[in-house]
Amino acid sequence: MRLQTACIDTQQITYDGLQLAPHWIYREHGIQGDAAVAFIGPCNVELTEMVDIEDVKKVAPIYSPLMLHVIAEFFDDLGLHATVYRQRLLIVQAKELLETYIRQRVRRDGDDLYLDRTDGSEGKLSVSIATSSPSSMLIHTAFNILTEGTPVATVGLAELGVDPATFGRELLANYAAELADIYMARCKVRPVLK
Amino acid sequence: MRLQTACIDTQQITYDGLQLAPHWIYREHGIQGDAAVAFIGPCNVELTEMVDIEDVKKVAPIYSPLMLHVIAEFFDDLGLHATVYRQRLLIVQAKELLETYIRQRVRRDGDDLYLDRTDGSEGKLSVSIATSSPSSMLIHTAFNILTEGTPVATVGLAELGVDPATFGRELLANYAAELADIYMARCKVRPVLK
Amino acid sequence: MRLQTACIDTQQITYDGLQLAPHWIYREHGIQGDAAVAFIGPCNVELTEMVDIEDVKKVAPIYSPLMLHVIAEFFDDLGLHATVYRQRLLIVQAKELLETYIRQRVRRDGDDLYLDRTDGSEGKLSVSIATSSPSSMLIHTAFNILTEGTPVATVGLAELGVDPATFGRELLANYAAELADIYMARCKVRPVLK
Amino acid sequence: MRLQTACIDTQQITYDGLQLAPHWIYREHGIQGDAAVAFIGPCNVELTEMVDIEDVKKVAPIYSPLMLHVIAEFFDDLGLHATVYRQRLLIVQAKELLETYIRQRVRRDGDDLYLDRTDGSEGKLSVSIATSSPSSMLIHTAFNILTEGTPVATVGLAELGVDPATFGRELLANYAAELADIYMARCKVRPVLK
Amino acid sequence: MRLQTACIDTQQITYDGLQLAPHWIYREHGIQGDAAVAFIGPCNVELTEMVDIEDVKKVAPIYSPLMLHVIAEFFDDLGLHATVYRQRLLIVQAKELLETYIRQRVRRDGDDLYLDRTDGSEGKLSVSIATSSPSSMLIHTAFNILTEGTPVATVGLAELGVDPATFGRELLANYAAELADIYMARCKVRPVLK
Amino acid sequence: MRLQTACIDTQQITYDGLQLAPHWIYREHGIQGDAAVAFIGPCNVELTEMVDIEDVKKVAPIYSPLMLHVIAEFFDDLGLHATVYRQRLLIVQAKELLETYIRQRVRRDGDDLYLDRTDGSEGKLSVSIATSSPSSMLIHTAFNILTEGTPVATVGLAELGVDPATFGRELLANYAAELADIYMARCKVRPVLK
Repeated sequence: MRLQTACIDTQQITYDGLQLAPHWIYREHGIQGDAAVAFIGPCNVELTEMVDIEDVKKVAPIYSPLMLHVIAEFFDDLGLHATVYRQRLLIVQAKELLETYIRQRVRRDGDDLYLDRTDGSEGKLSVSIATSSPSSMLIHTAFNILTEGTPVATVGLAELGVDPATFGRELLANYAAELADIYMARCKVRPVLK
Repeated sequence: MRLQTACIDTQQITYDGLQLAPHWIYREHGIQGDAAVAFIGPCNVELTEMVDIEDVKKVAPIYSPLMLHVIAEFFDDLGLHATVYRQRLLIVQAKELLETYIRQRVRRDGDDLYLDRTDGSEGKLSVSIATSSPSSMLIHTAFNILTEGTPVATVGLAELGVDPATFGRELLANYAAELADIYMARCKVRPVLK
Repeated sequence: MRLQTACIDTQQITYDGLQLAPHWIYREHGIQGDAAVAFIGPCNVELTEMVDIEDVKKVAPIYSPLMLHVIAEFFDDLGLHATVYRQRLLIVQAKELLETYIRQRVRRDGDDLYLDRTDGSEGKLSVSIATSSPSSMLIHTAFNILTEGTPVATVGLAELGVDPATFGRELLANYAAELADIYMARCKVRPVLK
Repeated sequence: MRLQTACIDTQQITYDGLQLAPHWIYREHGIQGDAAVAFIGPCNVELTEMVDIEDVKKVAPIYSPLMLHVIAEFFDDLGLHATVYRQRLLIVQAKELLETYIRQRVRRDGDDLYLDRTDGSEGKLSVSIATSSPSSMLIHTAFNILTEGTPVATVGLAELGVDPATFGRELLANYAAELADIYMARCKVRPVLK
Repeated sequence: MRLQTACIDTQQITYDGLQLAPHWIYREHGIQGDAAVAFIGPCNVELTEMVDIEDVKKVAPIYSPLMLHVIAEFFDDLGLHATVYRQRLLIVQAKELLETYIRQRVRRDGDDLYLDRTDGSEGKLSVSIATSSPSSMLIHTAFNILTEGTPVATVGLAELGVDPATFGRELLANYAAELADIYMARCKVRPVLK
Repeated sequence: MRLQTACIDTQQITYDGLQLAPHWIYREHGIQGDAAVAFIGPCNVELTEMVDIEDVKKVAPIYSPLMLHVIAEFFDDLGLHATVYRQRLLIVQAKELLETYIRQRVRRDGDDLYLDRTDGSEGKLSVSIATSSPSSMLIHTAFNILTEGTPVATVGLAELGVDPATFGRELLANYAAELADIYMARCKVRPVLK
C-alpha cells in the first residue's frame, strides 16, 4: 500500500460534493492510483449532493466559509466496511497531529473532532464521510479554517493558530506512512493454525 | 457487527501465546462468534510461540510480570489487512480512554503506546499483534500493570493509578460501540456513481 | 449477522419495483443496517423497472392485485452469488412455514413456490428476485394474497386461509433466526488443514 | 458453477472424519475441481477428529452402523459463511427429495433432519457440518441407513424403505442442478443503482 | 470456470462502446453467464463512450474501418484487478496464436500488440480495455482487419493474410481452454502451512 | 502493487520445496511485503514436499542439477485463483524475454515452456507452481541451467547461451514493471453502469 499524496496550493477549490467522485483526483490532478490530496476552499454541499443519508434525512446541509479538505481514493479492494476504518484512522491522525500543535485536548466522537472554545463551549472542527464508487473507495474529510455562518457551533484552525497548509501536508504524510506501516504489519505475522 | 465482550475476573491467566488461537474464546470461555475478552495475568511468550516474525528475527521475547490482556476474534471475513486497522483502533481507544483517566498525554507510535515516566524518560505501556487463523482473525493487545523485569523500559497501569479491571471493562465497551458504529456508517451512505 | 425485521401494518404499499432500491428500508422506514421488512399491497412492475433480464426478454411484467411483500437488504459483503443462496433460504422457509399452516404440500422450483388448487391444477404462489446495488445486496420476495388478473395461473394466501400479516411476521422471525444460526455455524468449526 | 458428482458404489468406506479433508475427492477418487461424492459406510468419528467444536465441548462423538455420506468440496472462493448456506441447501434438497419418496413430512431444524417414527417419537436422520480448509470449503452430510447403537434417537433410510444408492444419486443430481441454477440467477439480473 | 464462447458471423456489428455493457452478451446474443463473443465490424468510439480515462485525457478517440472484436463478461467475482490479468492473458494468447499463423514476431507492450510492417516501421494491431460493471467484469479487445484512416500507425489482419473469422474462433477456443486450465491449477495444489 | 525484487548472487541455494513457504523471503532475505527473489541452485524436491497433487499422484518428483529459481510472495489478497494468472504472466514474460535473447521460438503450454533442441526434439525448460499459505500467495518458477539427469527431456539456459543471472535480473524487473502497470490499468477506467 503506497498512498500518493499531493497538496494543491495554487488555487482554492470549493467543495460542493462533486469532488467526492471516482477518478476526480486522476482527472483533475493527474495522479493515477491510490492517492490523497489536500486543498483549501469553501464547503457548500446541497442536500442533493450529500452521500450521508442520515444527514439528508435530518435536512442537514454542510456549509463552511473555508476549510482544509482531504479527498482520498483507494483502488485496493478493501471494501466499504474496511474503508470506514481507514477514514477513522485519518481522523485519529488529524487529532493526534493537532494535539502536537496546540496545547489543548481534541475530543474524537467517531469520525467527528471537537475542541473547547475560549468561551467554554465546544466547537466541531471537522466533517467526514466514507463512501464507495463502483470501482473504488472514497473519503472526504475537512477541517474548518474559518467558521462564520456554519450551521452548528464550530471551531476553526485559524482561531487555533494552526496553519492549514502545514497541517494538511503533515497530515497526508503521516497518513501515508501509517497506511504503509499497516500493510507491512499485515505482511510480518505468522498465522496461527490451531 | 456486534462484538460480544467479557471480562474474566475469577482468575489470573498467564498469557504465553497459546491464547492467540482460533476459538480459544469459545473453547475456554463459551462465547461463540465475534468477541473480545479481557483478563489479567503475567505475560511470558517464548520465541517459538511468537507470531511477529520481526520480533523473532530480533530475538525479542515478551515478558511482563502482570498485564491487562485483550484477545479479540473476528469471523466476519474482513481479512488480515483490515484487521490491522481494527487493531490500531483498539490501541487508539486505549489511548483515548487512558487520557480521560490521567492528566498526561499518551503517545501512540503505530500499535505501541508510550508515556512519560516520573524520571523524564519514556516507558512503553503496551504490546499488540494482529494475525490470522485459517478461518478467523485474531488480535492480542496487552497493557503493563506491573513492570518489574520487563526487557525494555516500560510503564504500568499501577504506577499511573489506573485500575486495570475498570480500564479493561470500559475499553471493551468503547471498542464494541465503535465497531458497531463503524458498521452502521458503512450502511448509511449513498454510493457515488460518477 | 443480526437481521433487523419489521412488519409495516399501518398502510398498504404498492410494489412497483422502486422499493427494490439501496437504503429504501432506511430512507422510508428508518431502519439502518441489515434488515428485512414485510408489507402488504398490490404488485405492478413495468418492464422498465424489472431487474430480471430473463423476464424482460420474455416481456413478462409482474402483476398481482394484493401480495405480501418482503424486502431485505444486506450490507455484510457476501456478494450477489451468496445472496441468491440467502434468497433461496427465504423461499425455503416460506415453504416450510406455510406447510405448518396448511395440510398441503408446497412445491419449490428454484425460487418459485407452487401449490395444487382445488380444481387439481397448480398455481404459482410467489415471485422472487435477488440483485445487487453498488454497496448492498437486495432481495424482493412476494406471495399472492389475492390472484384476480394475474398473468399466470396463481394461488393466493386468502384462498388457503392463511393470514398474510401473521405469515409475514413469523417468516421474518424465522429467517432472522436462521441467518443468525448460520453465522454461528460458521464460527464454531475447526478448519481442516490437511 | 459446475459441480461434478460421483457415487462410489464399488466399496463401503468408513467415515471417520479423515474424509473431510482438502483434495480427498481428488486424491482418492480422481475428480479435480468442485465436486460432490456419495458413498455408503459406517460412521465413527472420534472426538479428536471432530471439527464441530460445539460437539467436542459436549463430548458428543458421532456413530452410526451404516450411513449414506456426501462429501462436497468447493474451490470457488465463496467463503465459509456462504458455504454454510450451501450446506443448508443440500439439507433442504435432501428433505424435499425424501418427501417425494415417502408420504411423511420431514422436519428440518437448521442442518438437521428429523422424522416421526412408528412409535410416535421423533428420530434424527442426518448429521452435517461445513468447514474450511486453507484453500477450499468442505461439507460432510450423512443420512442414517441403519440405526442400531446410535448415541441419540435416530431413524434410518432402511426402515423408511428408501434405497440409499438411488437417494444419493438423485440428491447429488438435484444439488448440482440447483447450484448451477443459482449461479445463473446471479448472472441474469440488472443491478439497481439508486 | 467454464467460459461459453460464440462467434457472430451473420452480421457485422459496429463497436461504438455500447457493447461494453453488463449483460450485453445475454441481452443481444442470448448467452447467460460467463461468456466471450467475437464479431467483426467497424470501430468508432466517441470520447463520451470511452472508459479509459487516460485516453479521454489525451483526447484519443478510437477508430478503425474494420476490426475483429472480442467482448468477454465474467460474473465469478474475481474483481477488476484480477480481470486485468485475464485481459492480459487474452492478449498473450492472441499474440501466441498469431505467431503460429505468420512467420513474424508480434511484440506485446502491456495490453497492446505491435508488428513490423513491410516498410520497416511498426504498426499497432490491437486495442483493449478491461473495466467493471456493478455486478460483472468486462473486457473488450479488438484487432484491426483493415487500417485505412486509423489515427495512429496500425497493421491489420488482412495485410498479414490472416482470416479474422478463423483467428477469432481459435482465439476464443484457446482462451476458454486456458481459463478452465487455470481454474483447475487452482484446485490441484496443497497449501503450504509454514 | 509494488513488487520488491532481489537477486541472490552470493551463494547457491538448493531448492527442495522448503523455500516455497510463507515469509521465507522475509525470514531468509529480509524483504518484508510483496516480493520476488531469484537465486541459482540445484532442484531436488521429494514427493513429500511437493504441493502439486497431480505430480504426487503421478509419482513425478522434480530434479535438475542447476536451475534459476524465482520465489514470489504476495500479501495483497488477490486469492489463489488470481495468483495462477499472476504465475502465468511470469511464465509469459520469461518466454517473451528469452525470445529477445535467442533467435528461437519458445513454446508455452500453460505454465510450462518448451524449446526445440539441436537434435530436433523438444525439451522442457521450466517448472512452475502457484499455491497458497494461510495468509499469502506463493509462486515458484524455475528454469533449467544444466539438464544432466533430469527425469524428462529438458533444455537448459547454458546450452542456449543465456546467462542465468542476467536473465533472472531482467525477468524480475520486467515482472515488477508489468504488475505495477496492471494495477494502474485497474485504476484508470470508468466503470460501465448499464
